[in-house]
Amino acid sequence: MSQVDTQLEDIRSQIEQEIPNDITITDVKYEGPELVVYTRDPKRFAGDGDLIRRLASQLRKRITVRPDPSTLSPPSEARQQVLDVVPEEAGISDLDFHADTGEVVIEAQKPGMVIGRRGSTLREITQEVGWTPEVVRTPPIESSTVSNVRNFLKQEREERRDILERVGRQIHREELSDEEWVRITTLGCCREVGRAAFILNTPETRILIDCGDKPGAEGEVPYLQVPEALGAGAQNIDAVVLTHAHLDHSALIPLLFKYGYDGPIYTTEPTRDLMGLLQLDYLDVAAKEGRTPPYESAQVREAIKHTIPLEYGDVTDIAPDVKITFHNAGHILGSAVTHFHIGDGLYNVAFSGDIHYDDTRLFNGAVNDFPRVETLVLESTYGGRNDYQTDQEDSERRLKEVINETYERGGKVVIPAFAVGRSQELMLVLEEAMRNGDIPEMPVHLDGMIWEATAIHTTYPEYLRDDLRDRIFHEDENPFLADQFNHIDGGEEERQEVADGEQCIVLSTSGMVEGGPIMSWLRHIGTDPDSTLTFVGYQAQGTLGRRIQNGWDEIPVDGWGGGGRGDTLTLNMETETVDGFSGHADRQGLENFVKTMNPRPEKVLCVHGDESSVQDLSSALYHDYNMRTFAPKNLETFRFK
Amino acid sequence: MSQVDTQLEDIRSQIEQEIPNDITITDVKYEGPELVVYTRDPKRFAGDGDLIRRLASQLRKRITVRPDPSTLSPPSEARQQVLDVVPEEAGISDLDFHADTGEVVIEAQKPGMVIGRRGSTLREITQEVGWTPEVVRTPPIESSTVSNVRNFLKQEREERRDILERVGRQIHREELSDEEWVRITTLGCCREVGRAAFILNTPETRILIDCGDKPGAEGEVPYLQVPEALGAGAQNIDAVVLTHAHLDHSALIPLLFKYGYDGPIYTTEPTRDLMGLLQLDYLDVAAKEGRTPPYESAQVREAIKHTIPLEYGDVTDIAPDVKITFHNAGHILGSAVTHFHIGDGLYNVAFSGDIHYDDTRLFNGAVNDFPRVETLVLESTYGGRNDYQTDQEDSERRLKEVINETYERGGKVVIPAFAVGRSQELMLVLEEAMRNGDIPEMPVHLDGMIWEATAIHTTYPEYLRDDLRDRIFHEDENPFLADQFNHIDGGEEERQEVADGEQCIVLSTSGMVEGGPIMSWLRHIGTDPDSTLTFVGYQAQGTLGRRIQNGWDEIPVDGWGGGGRGDTLTLNMETETVDGFSGHADRQGLENFVKTMNPRPEKVLCVHGDESSVQDLSSALYHDYNMRTFAPKNLETFRFK
Ligand SMILES: [Zn+2]
Ligand SMILES: [Zn+2]
Ligand SMILES: [Zn+2]
Ligand SMILES: [Zn+2]
Ligand SMILES: [Zn+2]
Repeated sequence: MSQVDTQLEDIRSQIEQEIPNDITITDVKYEGPELVVYTRDPKRFAGDGDLIRRLASQLRKRITVRPDPSTLSPPSEARQQVLDVVPEEAGISDLDFHADTGEVVIEAQKPGMVIGRRGSTLREITQEVGWTPEVVRTPPIESSTVSNVRNFLKQEREERRDILERVGRQIHREELSDEEWVRITTLGCCREVGRAAFILNTPETRILIDCGDKPGAEGEVPYLQVPEALGAGAQNIDAVVLTHAHLDHSALIPLLFKYGYDGPIYTTEPTRDLMGLLQLDYLDVAAKEGRTPPYESAQVREAIKHTIPLEYGDVTDIAPDVKITFHNAGHILGSAVTHFHIGDGLYNVAFSGDIHYDDTRLFNGAVNDFPRVETLVLESTYGGRNDYQTDQEDSERRLKEVINETYERGGKVVIPAFAVGRSQELMLVLEEAMRNGDIPEMPVHLDGMIWEATAIHTTYPEYLRDDLRDRIFHEDENPFLADQFNHIDGGEEERQEVADGEQCIVLSTSGMVEGGPIMSWLRHIGTDPDSTLTFVGYQAQGTLGRRIQNGWDEIPVDGWGGGGRGDTLTLNMETETVDGFSGHADRQGLENFVKTMNPRPEKVLCVHGDESSVQDLSSALYHDYNMRTFAPKNLETFRFK
Repeated sequence: MSQVDTQLEDIRSQIEQEIPNDITITDVKYEGPELVVYTRDPKRFAGDGDLIRRLASQLRKRITVRPDPSTLSPPSEARQQVLDVVPEEAGISDLDFHADTGEVVIEAQKPGMVIGRRGSTLREITQEVGWTPEVVRTPPIESSTVSNVRNFLKQEREERRDILERVGRQIHREELSDEEWVRITTLGCCREVGRAAFILNTPETRILIDCGDKPGAEGEVPYLQVPEALGAGAQNIDAVVLTHAHLDHSALIPLLFKYGYDGPIYTTEPTRDLMGLLQLDYLDVAAKEGRTPPYESAQVREAIKHTIPLEYGDVTDIAPDVKITFHNAGHILGSAVTHFHIGDGLYNVAFSGDIHYDDTRLFNGAVNDFPRVETLVLESTYGGRNDYQTDQEDSERRLKEVINETYERGGKVVIPAFAVGRSQELMLVLEEAMRNGDIPEMPVHLDGMIWEATAIHTTYPEYLRDDLRDRIFHEDENPFLADQFNHIDGGEEERQEVADGEQCIVLSTSGMVEGGPIMSWLRHIGTDPDSTLTFVGYQAQGTLGRRIQNGWDEIPVDGWGGGGRGDTLTLNMETETVDGFSGHADRQGLENFVKTMNPRPEKVLCVHGDESSVQDLSSALYHDYNMRTFAPKNLETFRFK
């Protein structure tokens, strides 16, 4: 009998001592970080609302109770019972019964009404029906990503249970080492932006944090081949933790599966879906540009299959000596500051991922409130001494001015934007401005992946700023459903119509004018001197966006939606730049994030910024707060403890 | 055909173009770092003294020419021919013919006479006899270590050739990576003395430098299990480089073979022999103390079998992108400052190993003259702000005083000493003092491994200080052969006789009174108030030597050479401490080593010293010479380039 089996036997007897004699436990097993208890009497369990909580705190484990398959009523019967218990207004759109685990997945427009006050309706379902309910939201805007992911996971359910059980046993394996140390190795995004990747290493455990690409430098991938990472064999990595879906953090995660990795990816649920969307697009773009992508869509599916989603605030065992907790990072949907608690009080490390410190329209500001953090790994995108951003209020005022000026000229406003995050922020600005009459009502056309990304946002309103979440919960106030927003899904024909039609605003990818439908919009509208090309996001060195900002007006238009090879277009549009819509904290925000931590970390590693940004931020934090600060290079290892 | 085979074909054609048409090449292969050329016409090759040198410089390889086995005269015939060519005064003591390689190993009392002026006699042998001569010295003092090692290597000759060929092909393999970086990972001896071990890592190559134990803390071994070291598989280490034989640098090298390492160990020839001696003793001591040693003597033999000895100053390829050069370190016999040249001018790192900067009687001072060194990894044993040692002249005067005072009282002088290095230094002091009449002539008894270690010193006089080397070359002046020196090889009986006999000096291991025959000498002489126990070396915290220095006079005497369990002895001897015979540079020496480097390194890693020593030295070098200095912890990785 393995050590994990012995452990499970022990736990089972502890549970049996705690519960009433007439409740029968049929199995106790690990599935991922959770302890799953199978019982012939799920209704009795559900009857005592506090029993599971008591067990969880006694065993210091996350516990799920499921009915033993032998006790289940037939799905046909159970279906009706569920529909009877749940109020009709919940808007159940799908019911999916899994006899193997006794779970019923309830997709509903209003998940809160399926859950009930403090879980009362859920408990009622268990008591009445016997099946264990799991609730997901019906996307208020149809999202092919969300439905593809959900269908895929449904289809791969059996393999996924095997994975979870294997991972669960790994997490709860016996600790072997009596040494104590903590190390971080930098595999990327040091003194640069891009290819985020770190190894957190203890004598027991190796965790990869992020695994991104470097936009504009496809050859420069994280140093995965060194022995600290995959060089010692991909199976030596215990877990992957993903802070958010941006490709500079997620693009190369599927590659791990090509190299033989077979373990879990911990991230939030929205990050999982956005990651799938962005990775598949990454493959698409590579194909269109004639590059051979480093992996196939099959590996994207592997990544999704191996993802174990965690919610903000859940303290989760991911190894015998490591617990993680995700906290809102304020950067994009699902983005997480990740707190690692190592050993039993031995050491604490927080990885900021990318953060926005202040509240935005979309998100609450990044959380920096941890019981203990000895070392902070901090992004430094805007860590430079002059990287203070315009106030968002001023930015919004300026954007509205640009729109109004263009409108008065009779032109259209074209905004290149990233699909995830900034587009939704702008949608909120535009929706409010029209509602308040600050700008005229007119259509806002969303092209590229923006619509799909917006749909994903509305599927996970819990991850949005609290007042926005409340508005989304009331369908009639959901700003993303406003009439002005139009999804460009009719291709070139629709674009031509829009270009020939009434005044409007166009939000289109790519955000740095590096391909994508924005190229087509430039062809259609670029020659109109009354229209305005409005930049709202950072334009990196070497991108066409940056060159246009710098005054270029001869634009290559081949390679997207027709147009002969080598064609160019003379840009006659006005161009404007409106700063202040960044998803990143500015220099002040980064300092505030650190300054208001209590207690403050002893050490800060400044990463994810160009050389001068990390150096500036590192020396400022050192001088102002007297912490030990570092601006590491890639491929260095820091020892803590 | 593998890439190495293609390369060898190329080289063969280049050679054939360069040499006269009538010389036949039968094979060209790598054996370790050397290119070996087999020919039917070894005599023709030998005839042109400059041909090999021209080829070597053209091919940028070390070249050895050997006769094709088919051309060899029978050994019986060849033996007489060799004896005819070599002058009788060379004192040939053994001739060993190896038909597989066409080599004849000539062991002679005066190797220089076998070699001849600029190699003329060697060339004559090849021309007359056809066999390729290799010359070794007949130990002037019989050394069982040296003869065991030589016999063992003779016996394992075939496997050794396989190893060399495999290593040779590894060294000359194709470079695969187009990345360029250099990293050092610390596996031990950081902020501590003991368990020296470093990994030098490039995209191409991983090299382990030293692999020692931590005296007095047997559990604290180098962090070999991390993925940068053996965690990724022992076969991922390309080479081991050993700076010197002390156990804190060499003790765990045999363990590597237990873990599956099968590659080369580069070190000097005397270090190889001393390493064997000390490792076998290490196993002995562990057995006597009832500990299970981490490996067996079989692994010590593996280590010796895999050793590729290099001489000071030889620039040697040990990987496609790494050349090393050993330089005298002045610390113990064969100790080497090791210079690594990485890439084609990419980067240079020097590992000091342990060094003594000034000349001593035994050794020239450490070499610090390199064409380029960007990073220096520097020992810091005496790096503390107050670690200035007594001048050796003063120390010698004080030692002679102690001896004279004891002699006048009618007592004996007992000196605990390390077998390797300090004992030989003391022998030289005592021999000269007696010769000059500074102290009375009296027997000097050498107990423990001191005699054997001395024998190894006399086998390799090339590694000793130049004037000492010259004296050893003339048998009548060899100071180690002086009549006063007596090897205690009669056990307890002889010790009893010496104790009961005339006045004398005893040098005995262990150096810190931690077991070994010194315990027996304390039993025999410890109660005599006229005798003096004289400490000449550093006594570490927690050792009996240190406690005696601090005034303890109740000595446990069980566990060595009889004496009941729990017996104690009251020490009535005088105790004296004479500083200044250290094998390590003092603080001034360390600073001088760095200061006089030209050019000075950009970065210095201060290691191999306790916490305050490395910190003191690191900040002193930073302030005085404005270099970037570090006092790393174990398990950190530094990136250069
Ligand atoms: Zn199903
Ligand atoms: Zn990001
Ligand atoms: Zn990022
Ligand atoms: Zn040493
Ligand atoms: Zn040492």
